[in-house]
Amino acid sequence: MLFGVAYYDEYMPYERLEKDIAMMKEAGINVVRIAESTWSTMEPQEGVFDFSHIDRVLNAMHKAGIKVIVGTPTYAVPTWLVRKYPDVLAITAQGPNRYGARQNMDIANTHFRQHAEQAIRKLLVHVKDHPAIIGYQVDNETKAYNTAGPEVQKQFVAYMKTKFGTLEAINKAFGLDYWSNRINSWEDFPSMVGSINASQIAEFAKFQRKLVTDYLAWQTKIVNEYKRPGQFVTQNFDLEWRGYSYGIQPDVDHFAAAKALDVAGIDIYHPTQDALTGTEIAFGGDIARSMKVDASSGKNYLVIETEAQGFPEWLPYPGQLRLQAFSHLASGANMLEYWHWHSTHNAIETYWKGLLSHDFEPNPTYDEAKTIGKDFARLSPQLVNLKKTNQVAILFSNEAQTAFNAFKFGWYSQNNYNDILRPMYDALYRMNVGVDFIDPSSQNIEQYKLLVVPALYAAPDSLLQRLNRFVKNGGHIVYTFKSGFSDQNVKVRTTPQPGLISEALGITYTQFTIPQNVSLKGDPFGVGSDNNKVKGWMELVTPTTAKVLAYYDHPVWGKYAAVTENTFGKGLATYIGCWTDGAVTEKILADAVRKANLWGAAQLLHFPLITRQGTNEQGKTVHYLFNYSAKPGQLTYPFANGRELIKGETVPKNSVLDLAPWGVKIIEEQ
Amino acid sequence: MLFGVAYYDEYMPYERLEKDIAMMKEAGINVVRIAESTWSTMEPQEGVFDFSHIDRVLNAMHKAGIKVIVGTPTYAVPTWLVRKYPDVLAITAQGPNRYGARQNMDIANTHFRQHAEQAIRKLLVHVKDHPAIIGYQVDNETKAYNTAGPEVQKQFVAYMKTKFGTLEAINKAFGLDYWSNRINSWEDFPSMVGSINASQIAEFAKFQRKLVTDYLAWQTKIVNEYKRPGQFVTQNFDLEWRGYSYGIQPDVDHFAAAKALDVAGIDIYHPTQDALTGTEIAFGGDIARSMKVDASSGKNYLVIETEAQGFPEWLPYPGQLRLQAFSHLASGANMLEYWHWHSTHNAIETYWKGLLSHDFEPNPTYDEAKTIGKDFARLSPQLVNLKKTNQVAILFSNEAQTAFNAFKFGWYSQNNYNDILRPMYDALYRMNVGVDFIDPSSQNIEQYKLLVVPALYAAPDSLLQRLNRFVKNGGHIVYTFKSGFSDQNVKVRTTPQPGLISEALGITYTQFTIPQNVSLKGDPFGVGSDNNKVKGWMELVTPTTAKVLAYYDHPVWGKYAAVTENTFGKGLATYIGCWTDGAVTEKILADAVRKANLWGAAQLLHFPLITRQGTNEQGKTVHYLFNYSAKPGQLTYPFANGRELIKGETVPKNSVLDLAPWGVKIIEEQ
Amino acid sequence: MLFGVAYYDEYMPYERLEKDIAMMKEAGINVVRIAESTWSTMEPQEGVFDFSHIDRVLNAMHKAGIKVIVGTPTYAVPTWLVRKYPDVLAITAQGPNRYGARQNMDIANTHFRQHAEQAIRKLLVHVKDHPAIIGYQVDNETKAYNTAGPEVQKQFVAYMKTKFGTLEAINKAFGLDYWSNRINSWEDFPSMVGSINASQIAEFAKFQRKLVTDYLAWQTKIVNEYKRPGQFVTQNFDLEWRGYSYGIQPDVDHFAAAKALDVAGIDIYHPTQDALTGTEIAFGGDIARSMKVDASSGKNYLVIETEAQGFPEWLPYPGQLRLQAFSHLASGANMLEYWHWHSTHNAIETYWKGLLSHDFEPNPTYDEAKTIGKDFARLSPQLVNLKKTNQVAILFSNEAQTAFNAFKFGWYSQNNYNDILRPMYDALYRMNVGVDFIDPSSQNIEQYKLLVVPALYAAPDSLLQRLNRFVKNGGHIVYTFKSGFSDQNVKVRTTPQPGLISEALGITYTQFTIPQNVSLKGDPFGVGSDNNKVKGWMELVTPTTAKVLAYYDHPVWGKYAAVTENTFGKGLATYIGCWTDGAVTEKILADAVRKANLWGAAQLLHFPLITRQGTNEQGKTVHYLFNYSAKPGQLTYPFANGRELIKGETVPKNSVLDLAPWGVKIIEEQ
Repeated sequence: MLFGVAYYDEYMPYERLEKDIAMMKEAGINVVRIAESTWSTMEPQEGVFDFSHIDRVLNAMHKAGIKVIVGTPTYAVPTWLVRKYPDVLAITAQGPNRYGARQNMDIANTHFRQHAEQAIRKLLVHVKDHPAIIGYQVDNETKAYNTAGPEVQKQFVAYMKTKFGTLEAINKAFGLDYWSNRINSWEDFPSMVGSINASQIAEFAKFQRKLVTDYLAWQTKIVNEYKRPGQFVTQNFDLEWRGYSYGIQPDVDHFAAAKALDVAGIDIYHPTQDALTGTEIAFGGDIARSMKVDASSGKNYLVIETEAQGFPEWLPYPGQLRLQAFSHLASGANMLEYWHWHSTHNAIETYWKGLLSHDFEPNPTYDEAKTIGKDFARLSPQLVNLKKTNQVAILFSNEAQTAFNAFKFGWYSQNNYNDILRPMYDALYRMNVGVDFIDPSSQNIEQYKLLVVPALYAAPDSLLQRLNRFVKNGGHIVYTFKSGFSDQNVKVRTTPQPGLISEALGITYTQFTIPQNVSLKGDPFGVGSDNNKVKGWMELVTPTTAKVLAYYDHPVWGKYAAVTENTFGKGLATYIGCWTDGAVTEKILADAVRKANLWGAAQLLHFPLITRQGTNEQGKTVHYLFNYSAKPGQLTYPFANGRELIKGETVPKNSVLDLAPWGVKIIEEQ
Repeated sequence: MLFGVAYYDEYMPYERLEKDIAMMKEAGINVVRIAESTWSTMEPQEGVFDFSHIDRVLNAMHKAGIKVIVGTPTYAVPTWLVRKYPDVLAITAQGPNRYGARQNMDIANTHFRQHAEQAIRKLLVHVKDHPAIIGYQVDNETKAYNTAGPEVQKQFVAYMKTKFGTLEAINKAFGLDYWSNRINSWEDFPSMVGSINASQIAEFAKFQRKLVTDYLAWQTKIVNEYKRPGQFVTQNFDLEWRGYSYGIQPDVDHFAAAKALDVAGIDIYHPTQDALTGTEIAFGGDIARSMKVDASSGKNYLVIETEAQGFPEWLPYPGQLRLQAFSHLASGANMLEYWHWHSTHNAIETYWKGLLSHDFEPNPTYDEAKTIGKDFARLSPQLVNLKKTNQVAILFSNEAQTAFNAFKFGWYSQNNYNDILRPMYDALYRMNVGVDFIDPSSQNIEQYKLLVVPALYAAPDSLLQRLNRFVKNGGHIVYTFKSGFSDQNVKVRTTPQPGLISEALGITYTQFTIPQNVSLKGDPFGVGSDNNKVKGWMELVTPTTAKVLAYYDHPVWGKYAAVTENTFGKGLATYIGCWTDGAVTEKILADAVRKANLWGAAQLLHFPLITRQGTNEQGKTVHYLFNYSAKPGQLTYPFANGRELIKGETVPKNSVLDLAPWGVKIIEEQ
Repeated sequence: MLFGVAYYDEYMPYERLEKDIAMMKEAGINVVRIAESTWSTMEPQEGVFDFSHIDRVLNAMHKAGIKVIVGTPTYAVPTWLVRKYPDVLAITAQGPNRYGARQNMDIANTHFRQHAEQAIRKLLVHVKDHPAIIGYQVDNETKAYNTAGPEVQKQFVAYMKTKFGTLEAINKAFGLDYWSNRINSWEDFPSMVGSINASQIAEFAKFQRKLVTDYLAWQTKIVNEYKRPGQFVTQNFDLEWRGYSYGIQPDVDHFAAAKALDVAGIDIYHPTQDALTGTEIAFGGDIARSMKVDASSGKNYLVIETEAQGFPEWLPYPGQLRLQAFSHLASGANMLEYWHWHSTHNAIETYWKGLLSHDFEPNPTYDEAKTIGKDFARLSPQLVNLKKTNQVAILFSNEAQTAFNAFKFGWYSQNNYNDILRPMYDALYRMNVGVDFIDPSSQNIEQYKLLVVPALYAAPDSLLQRLNRFVKNGGHIVYTFKSGFSDQNVKVRTTPQPGLISEALGITYTQFTIPQNVSLKGDPFGVGSDNNKVKGWMELVTPTTAKVLAYYDHPVWGKYAAVTENTFGKGLATYIGCWTDGAVTEKILADAVRKANLWGAAQLLHFPLITRQGTNEQGKTVHYLFNYSAKPGQLTYPFANGRELIKGETVPKNSVLDLAPWGVKIIEEQ
């Protein structure tokens, strides 16, 4: 089990290396990540390299028995590169980027690529034989940053030519006759920055995600030329950001981009104090674990960045740092790495604090980390390489996300795809239902018993047919509104809605509206009048063969169905035709879990008592028990007899367990 | 009576023409509007024309007996035009426009004009003899789109030279010595995009409105060269947009622009469901009807666009589509045309739905349209060419609007001219007082008995003197605050306020403020304490000869008058010196209607029971009765004996009538 | 005592001079300010000068016995200058400025400087011998307006070279290794407009303030070549603007910029009506008076601009104009000048009204000014050149302000430095504690008994050591949170916090957070539960030698101190470790005033009864008594026997005095 921090010798205000390593050792830290974003230090002038910071850290860490992950430094460009080649800065819809921040470059730019390649190769040649290095991270939190300048435009037109062949095909698929947007000659192909056509916007977004996939594959290929057997290459993927890690990342196709890598990595930041729920830890972990499900590496994912003290408002309460740490393991992480060791003394992230404050003194957060390090080291054999086998999966889709977000619930709506997906994930999390993520490219869809499919707004026929077959063959799917609505080009289907999935769902609709004072008739899920309200969106569903689980309560719309369920072949398909409150969503999903025969012992517990499980290297089932509350928790242990690993006590089935506020227990079945 | 839709063969995802026409015929549709905004399809490359979509639609419609209005395609430019002549995109204060949206061009640009002219002429030459065509629409929802590039600047300077003669005159009229804005040489004339001088800003806005007038006259002149006797030219004017059609359009001088046209056209979009009041239908209709009052054509106005399903939140309740349709006729419309037939499958207006959903299937909205089509056809002889004779008019002014909006109620105020005008219109609408609109150019001001004049902020002496004469000769005017304040150049008058109209009003003031906790003393209009509050603006009015209708209630300002009334010559002039609640405004206007001896039978009804009337071609009075409510309505029919046209029942005076929720009755006096 | 107005003959809509002067004389006006911002009138074309407006005003005023202050016209540039030399418009982070507004120029631009110099010299040569002129104002409300174009960038790099010597020093001090911002060659020095490094941002802000200081010194030097003995040079400084004059001006180093001037000037705008408190008048006056404390001129400051009618919402209640006028004198002003005489008839400030409305008629505000003019003239000998000796000072710092504002309370926080400083000032004002302002450059810090130090976020060691010595030697300091946190380069200190001042404060902390549901334990200041809440920021303080005045009330943070007090040497140091409500702040400061033995007779009164005092030229103590309330006030006069100057009545100590709403009394001790 790797326990680590990001470490920047470059940023230190005075000589700290030995003292820092001593404090790291005291905290059980056994890995550091270095070099990421330090291009200007490593290559102070074009072709002039200075590896002294890297060398001294590698040597000192090696001496101390601490492993090192070396990051390529490319996610922040040096001043000289921008001065000599101003075109390395991306041109976006807002104009040319400025120097200053990270992630301002055009990742497809030739000058950027040339200099990035040279820097990576020089670095790799220099460090490749160092024994401290266990792996590499290519770039960091990579996106295409909305790059849309003339050079990118050329590449996009070439991509479109390859993909669609003719302009006629594009004009047809994208409906470009509308508002005179028709393109009649390749040389007329307009820039996408002013587009009002969601098909174009979504295709350009897909092209930008492809730039990321290609870029990471390109960096990985370079690093692979140098890496030694046993070393890995990873990336630090991140999620949609809402002041913290919230949902599916719209700008990266995580599953495609992860293909080139040996092991998946992710950063997860989340509120703490009274707002700590563990949801983002579980969510980010489930995404990251699902990235490499098809890979042969067998390696669990790495949490490459998460907060120690973090933002001032995230300073953890006593116990929370431990709770967070074990929660990461419970999702299957094999590494937990804080960003960062110390707190930076200058610049924009001064108040994004590390394990240490600016004074480098021990503090309550660091002190708590020491207990984590000790427990990780002690329990590593039982906790590392946790295998999780879930029977429920959430099907997400970057294509559906981009397409949905182009329209939302109307021109003035602020809600996006993740506002629909996350409440479904959250409901399953609160019920302690383990979840994997799949996307339209996944080969393993058929292995699940229950699929949850939020707002699959854009999808090709082939996917919808595959999902119909999944039901027919005995699977259960819960769809929300707006699924099946448009094809892969964001052209709305010309059939009655919800398109091809009508067959499995046994419903149809031709109209929809925004609910005003609409509820579900008779509070069918027993959630109380506030939670029973319908918000944001409602489809006027008519069942063909489906059974209606809920009707709308409204003088005019009351004859239409809100929630339906349909037996199709050997399976069952549920449709949620409106945006329901989280309480209703949870009831519908609980019902679906039951009907899929997946309601088990874990479901006897409920948030704030969270349990997550897996199988360890010894083939034993490990149950994590978490109390996500400031109040003490009590539960009847519902699993087979086991042993609590932290305290070493035996725990018989049905024994009553107490969990401290923000408390953790880990029970290995015997 | 024309009943129609916009129809875009170009946008169809598959061959639909015959099926669509069959469904149109079933719905009683007898007119379609085509070709508007389809330039890229019609002229795929410079000088290469393809009229196949137009031809096949014209032929098919003609065969089906459906008339066609052909739109010039110029409101959305093709990609090739922008690539070859980038200067066709307007340069605004925000920089150069981007390709993508419609209405992004510089309507004064030479290249745009050349290519627009060629496209229009080629189209007209091609279609001019087709028997299906009843008229043409030039461009669509035309504005100048804030075009302000160097070429426009040159034209503006020439316009200023012509209008003012000398810089000295401009410097004086606009007060340009302030902040060193004085212009001492024509070559120094600065761009208006950075101006902080409301006189300049208002003059530039007027110049931009003139660009629209000139542009539409120019297109009309071209079309007139080809149109046959009996064919008309129209435009689709629109209103200030607040997510729906709200108020006076600041960017177009509707009365001036309509002069070149044969018949006025308008688009009207409005909320429905529980928010449907009919106000926007009446307001937009009254504006459009008033546009061509001086024209010899005698043709009533056309509703060129209105919603069918519209935005998702506008999906009409059962009955509402009918109620809306007859409400348009009740304002004097001779055509009702939905935007649009089908719902577009791609691009930004995917969720702005037509009569048909994306599935092209019948649906409740389409089904209701069928009943409208039938009734229109059946009742057309009694309903078409309704003549309305109103004795009340609202005097609006684009000049006052632009000037007022440059200042509003202060730098941080969000309220504009329409926030003052609309509540006055709404009050009259709710009282069932029929209203025309006039503007300072109107020749027919003197024919009215009561004028309502909101915030006539900028006006020349001649207009104010004319209004004084109107009162002296026996007319009644109700002015609001801020009327008469500045001259036609937005120079504040140097006399005591409210300038020249003080004479008719018998008041004066020299100070004003923003009310904080101010009401009207003693609730003089009996509206209750909430409605009695004064908001936004108050003038400290002192009567000279006027009678005070309301004083302010405030420890310091209590000695000043808020509302006054003055007998002047044979007439009466009322002044509302502060921004009152709509309830107070309605009381003041009701009082004014009574004092003008205009209180009649229609005023026995009140919103949500709306009645509107006119004289039909048979010379009979027709009364429309509408119930703008989800609850059933009942009323005592206050007019002369008549016959209800829809059901064919006789209706004696004073009989009790029931109106269904969102119900309609049409009674022709016998 | 000077009583005046800004007068713009240039802006007059018709010939007004004689009539205006007659009305001025009637109001006791004895000074006007002219020529400021009238460049386009004075120099209509390059090198062509027209002084006719200036000449006729000078002559007419002189004839009437009214003195004149002549402003250089440079704060608004003429059209011809911008056309010929477009680079005079500043380039900011938002791009190049546009022509139209004032203050849009690059004050460091060579072309601007050349033409400004020529205009100033021509003006001065022309007017220098005119007997009406008592002084000059250089420019107006000068700032650097965020100028950041290539030319300014060059100057900044040169400044950095001079200040830091080497890039290595800059890289180290600013922590530029972070995010690859390291600068390895002077030619690579990037533009600051995209910087994310608060050290850079703060240094660039300081450089911009230096541009202002240099620019004003440069203008003053030119004017000094022409001014006669006895004439003065001043500037019209202004404050942070929040719709009115709120706090410390971040863009100008007032103390440094004032050095070149003979006398300090300021503009002060503030809410009136029910929102009039006098706080801004006192605050702005205390700042302005403190600017020239080290100067040999001995002249009190000038209020160069304040409102007469002002914004519509500021129209003064009866009595308020008088109250305001005497409040300015009570802070030590020697001149009160309204902006402006009349109300402008065009342009952006039409609703920023002068003494006269647009009608030039007498009005209640003008009428009240007449009483002020009379009293000023009558009482001038007793009121002019008031000397104030305060024992309390607020230490502010532009460096701390810029640095704090770069971070605020987090990325999403809206609160800035003045939100911390102003409540402390306000509390002292409400307690009638007289206050001076000092900044880190002040030589007179040691003369005070009590220093109040809000958020001294960035400060060099030397300043902190000086403050420690101040306490050690018997002074009392009240610091807030975030003081001492970073050095002068905004590098966070690497010692435990609060850095060097820990020694005097006897506390330490290493963590902080944003309070959620945190109060002070046991309401230690007796302010009630609402006022007892902690907001925005809290540091987890541990006392070493300090006494804890308040602990946090929170389940987790309850063990940490919120407010502490420490005896250090002969003095006392108080630390407020969290953002408290104003009520708590006032209690803490009252306690500090008492402990500093400064609680006196003035503290027997409390807002809305305000008293301010000083010594007049006769060496007598003058007490101003103000009632900042719409209700009558009553007080027991707590000072020595005196004579009320306005009414001429004697006032024995302890006599009971009545103050009218918004009333004023001025008592001279006998």
